[in-house]
Amino acid sequence: MGTALTWPLTDNGHQVRLVGTHLDGPIIESCKSSRQHPGLGRSIPDSVDPLSHHELASALKGVDLVVSGVNSFGVHWLAHSVGPHLTPGQRILGVTKGLETTDEGDLEILPNVVTSLLPASISHQIKQAAIGGPCVASELARRAQTCVVFGSRCPGVADELALLFRTPYYRVTTTSDLLGLELCAAMKNAYAIAVGIASGVEVGREASDGSTSGWSNLPAAVFAQACTELSEWLAVLGAARELALALPGAGDLYVTCQGGRNSRLGRLLGLGHDLSQARAMMAGETLEGVATIRALARALPQMERKGRIAKASFPLMRALIAIVVEGAQLERLAEGRGWVWQPRPDV
Amino acid sequence: MGTALTWPLTDNGHQVRLVGTHLDGPIIESCKSSRQHPGLGRSIPDSVDPLSHHELASALKGVDLVVSGVNSFGVHWLAHSVGPHLTPGQRILGVTKGLETTDEGDLEILPNVVTSLLPASISHQIKQAAIGGPCVASELARRAQTCVVFGSRCPGVADELALLFRTPYYRVTTTSDLLGLELCAAMKNAYAIAVGIASGVEVGREASDGSTSGWSNLPAAVFAQACTELSEWLAVLGAARELALALPGAGDLYVTCQGGRNSRLGRLLGLGHDLSQARAMMAGETLEGVATIRALARALPQMERKGRIAKASFPLMRALIAIVVEGAQLERLAEGRGWVWQPRPDV
Repeated sequence: MGTALTWPLTDNGHQVRLVGTHLDGPIIESCKSSRQHPGLGRSIPDSVDPLSHHELASALKGVDLVVSGVNSFGVHWLAHSVGPHLTPGQRILGVTKGLETTDEGDLEILPNVVTSLLPASISHQIKQAAIGGPCVASELARRAQTCVVFGSRCPGVADELALLFRTPYYRVTTTSDLLGLELCAAMKNAYAIAVGIASGVEVGREASDGSTSGWSNLPAAVFAQACTELSEWLAVLGAARELALALPGAGDLYVTCQGGRNSRLGRLLGLGHDLSQARAMMAGETLEGVATIRALARALPQMERKGRIAKASFPLMRALIAIVVEGAQLERLAEGRGWVWQPRPDV
Repeated sequence: MGTALTWPLTDNGHQVRLVGTHLDGPIIESCKSSRQHPGLGRSIPDSVDPLSHHELASALKGVDLVVSGVNSFGVHWLAHSVGPHLTPGQRILGVTKGLETTDEGDLEILPNVVTSLLPASISHQIKQAAIGGPCVASELARRAQTCVVFGSRCPGVADELALLFRTPYYRVTTTSDLLGLELCAAMKNAYAIAVGIASGVEVGREASDGSTSGWSNLPAAVFAQACTELSEWLAVLGAARELALALPGAGDLYVTCQGGRNSRLGRLLGLGHDLSQARAMMAGETLEGVATIRALARALPQMERKGRIAKASFPLMRALIAIVVEGAQLERLAEGRGWVWQPRPDV
């Protein structure tokens, strides 16, 4: 996604330094030698300068903006590696989707995590912003029509950044509700696993049934429950509900359910594979939904204890936690706390 | 859908008389002679008695419930044909998805239309209820897990009816918000056309681009806008916003976008066919989304005049009206009032 964002930036005349992490060696090598990005399957724009993480210090000199394209496991790397080179007033625009849980069991959005990990001397002088909404990187790199939301709590920052990126194909609206934006971005990956499970459960029964046409009733029901719970999370955690219905919520969940990594993981779970089997089948793919479910599993009991959420709330997320964190069998879920994944009875 | 509902009913031990309209002759003939339903591709349940519309009077004798499976063009037939045989206190459960516009430009949900067309002597003694939520008929007929919402303004009626239908695979929750349920049911068909257009616009550009992978960013953006506008319609028209996020709204829109008739129509429009071409290519398929867009086209100017909605509101529905009712070219929309379907520029 970091690379994909170089299309709107360079189309707007900006110079971009594309720095890989220590995990991106082969990608940066390819970009340097042939200008081909292996993941996106196309040449990077002319005014992009690919650099390795060894060149990070010089890459960060004099930049207007740092775009962070690391995954949720990389935000600590980002803070520690990039942090020392930042100067007061600089802006970080993150595309990372995830959540962490504090020792007190509170959920923390990633821009706050980055702030807390930056050198104390500048941490509160760095302006954090983030991107939400449905955007498949490979489509953006082909200049497909894409509508996203930039969010920042710092007055004016989201609008300033939107001006840098906005093109006829990359449409940017802005919000000051960074919390809501980040909650949607993280949770839609978790809920996409749920929709995938529903799809897998039904497809898995197709063979015995003899039918080959689609099974969408159950995934659609889970999709609706996901949207409803997303809206509840926003309300419980202090954000406005509106984003659940908008690009960052229903929109991003929709695109992820059209074959995204997290929904494919769910589908494997629904087909009967356990989490370790499913992850092995998707080796090399980042599964941020799993990390988000784990963060929620840590936060949920504490939130319940503090009276912030009710015992019967969020049944779909609780079912995800049972499967992904506690290793519950789908069939067992049917017996008690399961939601809508019960096997279809052959009445 | 009317036939599909005989599965949960007969699984619950009920006797069902399945009456076709004058348009269903071949279907009822097939059900009578071989018990095969040609549309669903399977045998109807044993305790279903298929009958032609000539047998309507006797079919309605002593029934506990009338389930109306006509399409939105059939509610007038229903009222005129079934009405004279109804007795006070009887219940009609409708699965029809549509809206009509009164001469005053007010939107009217179909249960109200039926009530207004029934014989005056009993019209207000018939209890109206309706079903919303994501349910593909062929899946229900295969006993796929399906979650729906029954709605009625008559106290207790939705719950009574839910008891008749509820099975382990057909899960029914209830609401008293019949207005919200019916608005969602009708409008999701209209908005599914919009998502389909987005998909067609992008797929249509694939050939020139040389890429074969999916295009989901734009359909997902339109999906989100559809959810947002659905929620706005509910608020403007006096229903609660909640259903927009739930089974009747986001859930039903999701299932319709997975290859439903209305989204396929939209896709043809997005690929560049005009409405009459697209309809010809889908001859024989009921396109209720088009009728709903027409109803909204009649209502919108009056609602604006009365100050119930603002001029700039509902940009996606206005774009649908421009295309479907006014015959606007997609390309022309880009010049002014278009929303997100502008052709992707080859920057």
